[in-house]
Amino acid sequence: MKKPEVAIVMGSDSDWSIVKPATETLAQFNVSYEVRVISAHRTPEVASTYAKSAARRGIKVIIAAAGGAAHLGGVLAGHTSLPVIGIPIKGGALNGLDSLLATLQMPSGIPVATVTLGSAGPVNAALFAVQILALGKPGLQKKLAQHKSRMKKKVYAGDARVQKDLA
Amino acid sequence: MKKPEVAIVMGSDSDWSIVKPATETLAQFNVSYEVRVISAHRTPEVASTYAKSAARRGIKVIIAAAGGAAHLGGVLAGHTSLPVIGIPIKGGALNGLDSLLATLQMPSGIPVATVTLGSAGPVNAALFAVQILALGKPGLQKKLAQHKSRMKKKVYAGDARVQKDLA
Amino acid sequence: MKKPEVAIVMGSDSDWSIVKPATETLAQFNVSYEVRVISAHRTPEVASTYAKSAARRGIKVIIAAAGGAAHLGGVLAGHTSLPVIGIPIKGGALNGLDSLLATLQMPSGIPVATVTLGSAGPVNAALFAVQILALGKPGLQKKLAQHKSRMKKKVYAGDARVQKDLA
Amino acid sequence: MKKPEVAIVMGSDSDWSIVKPATETLAQFNVSYEVRVISAHRTPEVASTYAKSAARRGIKVIIAAAGGAAHLGGVLAGHTSLPVIGIPIKGGALNGLDSLLATLQMPSGIPVATVTLGSAGPVNAALFAVQILALGKPGLQKKLAQHKSRMKKKVYAGDARVQKDLA
Amino acid sequence: MKKPEVAIVMGSDSDWSIVKPATETLAQFNVSYEVRVISAHRTPEVASTYAKSAARRGIKVIIAAAGGAAHLGGVLAGHTSLPVIGIPIKGGALNGLDSLLATLQMPSGIPVATVTLGSAGPVNAALFAVQILALGKPGLQKKLAQHKSRMKKKVYAGDARVQKDLA
Amino acid sequence: MKKPEVAIVMGSDSDWSIVKPATETLAQFNVSYEVRVISAHRTPEVASTYAKSAARRGIKVIIAAAGGAAHLGGVLAGHTSLPVIGIPIKGGALNGLDSLLATLQMPSGIPVATVTLGSAGPVNAALFAVQILALGKPGLQKKLAQHKSRMKKKVYAGDARVQKDLA
Amino acid sequence: MKKPEVAIVMGSDSDWSIVKPATETLAQFNVSYEVRVISAHRTPEVASTYAKSAARRGIKVIIAAAGGAAHLGGVLAGHTSLPVIGIPIKGGALNGLDSLLATLQMPSGIPVATVTLGSAGPVNAALFAVQILALGKPGLQKKLAQHKSRMKKKVYAGDARVQKDLA
Amino acid sequence: MKKPEVAIVMGSDSDWSIVKPATETLAQFNVSYEVRVISAHRTPEVASTYAKSAARRGIKVIIAAAGGAAHLGGVLAGHTSLPVIGIPIKGGALNGLDSLLATLQMPSGIPVATVTLGSAGPVNAALFAVQILALGKPGLQKKLAQHKSRMKKKVYAGDARVQKDLA
Repeated sequence: MKKPEVAIVMGSDSDWSIVKPATETLAQFNVSYEVRVISAHRTPEVASTYAKSAARRGIKVIIAAAGGAAHLGGVLAGHTSLPVIGIPIKGGALNGLDSLLATLQMPSGIPVATVTLGSAGPVNAALFAVQILALGKPGLQKKLAQHKSRMKKKVYAGDARVQKDLA
Repeated sequence: MKKPEVAIVMGSDSDWSIVKPATETLAQFNVSYEVRVISAHRTPEVASTYAKSAARRGIKVIIAAAGGAAHLGGVLAGHTSLPVIGIPIKGGALNGLDSLLATLQMPSGIPVATVTLGSAGPVNAALFAVQILALGKPGLQKKLAQHKSRMKKKVYAGDARVQKDLA
Repeated sequence: MKKPEVAIVMGSDSDWSIVKPATETLAQFNVSYEVRVISAHRTPEVASTYAKSAARRGIKVIIAAAGGAAHLGGVLAGHTSLPVIGIPIKGGALNGLDSLLATLQMPSGIPVATVTLGSAGPVNAALFAVQILALGKPGLQKKLAQHKSRMKKKVYAGDARVQKDLA
Repeated sequence: MKKPEVAIVMGSDSDWSIVKPATETLAQFNVSYEVRVISAHRTPEVASTYAKSAARRGIKVIIAAAGGAAHLGGVLAGHTSLPVIGIPIKGGALNGLDSLLATLQMPSGIPVATVTLGSAGPVNAALFAVQILALGKPGLQKKLAQHKSRMKKKVYAGDARVQKDLA
Repeated sequence: MKKPEVAIVMGSDSDWSIVKPATETLAQFNVSYEVRVISAHRTPEVASTYAKSAARRGIKVIIAAAGGAAHLGGVLAGHTSLPVIGIPIKGGALNGLDSLLATLQMPSGIPVATVTLGSAGPVNAALFAVQILALGKPGLQKKLAQHKSRMKKKVYAGDARVQKDLA
Repeated sequence: MKKPEVAIVMGSDSDWSIVKPATETLAQFNVSYEVRVISAHRTPEVASTYAKSAARRGIKVIIAAAGGAAHLGGVLAGHTSLPVIGIPIKGGALNGLDSLLATLQMPSGIPVATVTLGSAGPVNAALFAVQILALGKPGLQKKLAQHKSRMKKKVYAGDARVQKDLA
Repeated sequence: MKKPEVAIVMGSDSDWSIVKPATETLAQFNVSYEVRVISAHRTPEVASTYAKSAARRGIKVIIAAAGGAAHLGGVLAGHTSLPVIGIPIKGGALNGLDSLLATLQMPSGIPVATVTLGSAGPVNAALFAVQILALGKPGLQKKLAQHKSRMKKKVYAGDARVQKDLA
Repeated sequence: MKKPEVAIVMGSDSDWSIVKPATETLAQFNVSYEVRVISAHRTPEVASTYAKSAARRGIKVIIAAAGGAAHLGGVLAGHTSLPVIGIPIKGGALNGLDSLLATLQMPSGIPVATVTLGSAGPVNAALFAVQILALGKPGLQKKLAQHKSRMKKKVYAGDARVQKDLA
């Protein structure tokens, strides 16, 4: 694989199955990525080293997925000026409101752009990364337009299924 | 002003004073922008035309600020593949939880990257836009690094003030 | 079937099984309807065209069902002056609070009248549509009165079951 | 005034200043209305008599505004088949979440169509009533279209103000 | 059974299995009761007649169990000066917050005393009714004291089980 | 004053102005009461002694008002079989949701019957106590009926005020 | 086992399986503990006696686990100056928000230091107790450092697993 | 001042007036402290260096106060085995629920013991620190007992004030 442009970081490998669709979306757009398990609290030095060196290594966008007091995105954003996208992971308590707020409510000066809480989150984080990378890349722009078309067609197909069911 | 790269759209001009810090942040980084009042519900055709033509007109990032059932970001994102950043505006009811969820909880395929609910929101939306635009622009990268330095110094100054108060 | 008077629109055909009871309720009152899968974000042009032409095609009431950042009702309401009834669909996160608020909290001037979050929602949306259509139609009024009678009898039957269980 | 078509009922005259914009909206559309203070809990017989006789007296739509354990809409809806629109009034506690849920979460068979919690609520309830009454009345339909135009123009004016401020 | 002193009313017989423990608790204290399925919205006349006649028929305390926009307790309390105890029933949406607030947030002058949301609710409603009835009845007071003793012993037994598990 | 039948206990004298309307309501019904400041956490022994001796001293009903992690009602209820009514006091954070849940969510076997969060709470707690005391006392029953009449008249007067304003 | 330094108290033995990981964590650090089932409401005298005598018996830290209107930590803290750590137990309703707030929102002067709502709670309560006991005990400090190392290694191992899955 | 045993760290000097009561409480117990302004996101290296060196410098307990996505406590706890107490600071949005959850919901292995959201928080954090430091220090234990006595007396005085007001 070519040098990764998107870094997907998650706080625990137990989140891997939830986060995986993000990699599939990136692969669909032929965007290179790396995936890392780094904990904001258990491996904070790794987190800071990783974030500080990311731009130098060619990373353009960081996606951070975490649950509970989800600090991962914020910690990474504190060490880099790259755009950091946060995926709040829903845990066993409070329906995910905790990770949503801990990811989103960053103080002035250190944004973490947060995407959907729930199964749409990883896909949307990846798509948002693609949208960023597509700036100035007509090829990727075209793929995004095609993706929008495919989504339209899926809606049409869904509509057709319902019409059939009603007939 | 040079051709705008960032579009700031708000649902009502009553939000202008809240959103204004976003423009000040962009100006601070010498990033060109335009500001528009477009309502997802009252001027939906303007919204769709605006979003569809944005990329063509040179816009790179769209920032959408709205309150209540805050659909503006989502409506714009439905018509463009540009990155759309959402600022949830806190209204008179429910402490802003309504605009937060209406902005954030986008379905799979149409991300709106959401920033802080509260006064840090507009600044962070603008900074995130700058982070996106800085990819591949060493000048802007440097400014972001300087901004991080200035924030550090403000914290040091705050620390000094407290030490003085304690002495 | 005769020309539809009620339009039931949902954001995804995955909501069909949840929304179906609305059609059954309308059928029970012999009210004609059509069902469409239209996404506010994935097929926004279809949504605007559909809403704009609905009155012309004889539609009297639009029912919109969506989950998450449920913009469907609001988007349709932006393009028509027909009454739009919103059904918030409960998704996997936040217990449906997101779709409830995104459907209900419409700005001044563009109402979406929202019904129960939960399994009663589709039935109540359909009944509310019937109540609107029944204005000036004694036949439909009578059916609504009979429906109220049937509900009473179901409560009496439930009471009888409990008395029997207690005896 | 001609025979009222819309009934606006509120639980306490202390809500009158909040509810008044609903009457102004109806007057703007030349829709006749009556306003009553009826308490679901303090004057329940008045509530049931009122609701039962409303259709007979020519009322087409009932708007019910209440706060806290806002039962007014539900109580009226139990006694009539007319469409009942609920306005949740925000009180001193819980940011209005109580009245929102008590108004909205009606059981299957007895819908109360609920509008925006907050200052947009009374206006939107009135507009929704007008949308219902406009079915089959080209005159009112036209007024609704004009209202949509006026809203558009207000947005354009707001946009102009911001452009002027930016210039 | 002797003339009932406690009335247990529920909005639907589908709540019977949830409410049943209330009757078991009353039986345990040899307190007579009746159980009725009465809907605030579907059988409102039954509700008002029932509440108005309850005191005359010898009822001392009314327990009302309902879910969603749980108006049952409030409707009954509007028609009687007997103490009304509300049991909020958790439904499929919003984790029961809706029924909790709709039961509890009664306006000044019409109290509904609300008990635990969750499985402890029906038992606690019944116990609270017994506590009311026990005023001035030494026999019942004694039984309540014995009940407190039994609860203590259950805690001791639980403690013993844990000690055994640890040993 | 005659021997008190109702005990009003609050966790801090800073709550006195909020709780006072409860005493005014009791006085209005000529029900004797005592008011005490007792903290569940700061004076726990006083709390247990007080609750244990309350019945012996002639108290029939205990009203407990507290904010935050509002344990006062629960602590008193653990030491007595008298009915304990809880008034959740709204504090500076979380809109009173904390005291509401801490008062209401008692475990099986130890009910605290909770009344309205907000300004209606103290009045409703007192009224509920009167309703309990009125069992078997025709004089108090009559006063409660008169109170209901007065409330009706206030609603009629409110209605009249609105009609006058509309005329 | 040596004289216990940490007391783990839970409100019901039904919480034992949830709380057990706390004992396993303490055992891992060779910290002595005792476990007790004591109910704040059902055995309040045991609770007060236990808390008052805890320091005298050599207990250094009390961990209290309870659900619903979780008063246990607060009740114990009212009777001792030992540090009390609260574990909110998630019950069947409200997603655990009730126990979280009832544990945390203690009034000024009586802290209960609260740990994670959810499965991490018991482990974190135990670890926090160890951190307290480790003050001035280099042996325990070293074990804590080793524990941090082990956690790091687990993260590295998780990272390795993901890399393998990706390869 | 003698070598500090307690470190109070806040994310911004704008929180200083809120946090100050913590220092007053420590001073009241003659416990030495230092106060620092350190931002988890703006000065992350200072945060990690500070936390790593704290134990070596004689710090026994760290108190961290922050608002919004309050990561400060978690970041410090990731770098030290000292007990970290978190004070959630209520900001302008969401009533402080964001800082509460971001502080509390730490993952397994990295506890941050959280105290009251609201004005009691800083005092309780300081008191909890004193309770920790008092282990094995009879002098400090005695002061804590005296503090409990003073609180009792304040409650008695409050009770006396109310009795006087009632007389």
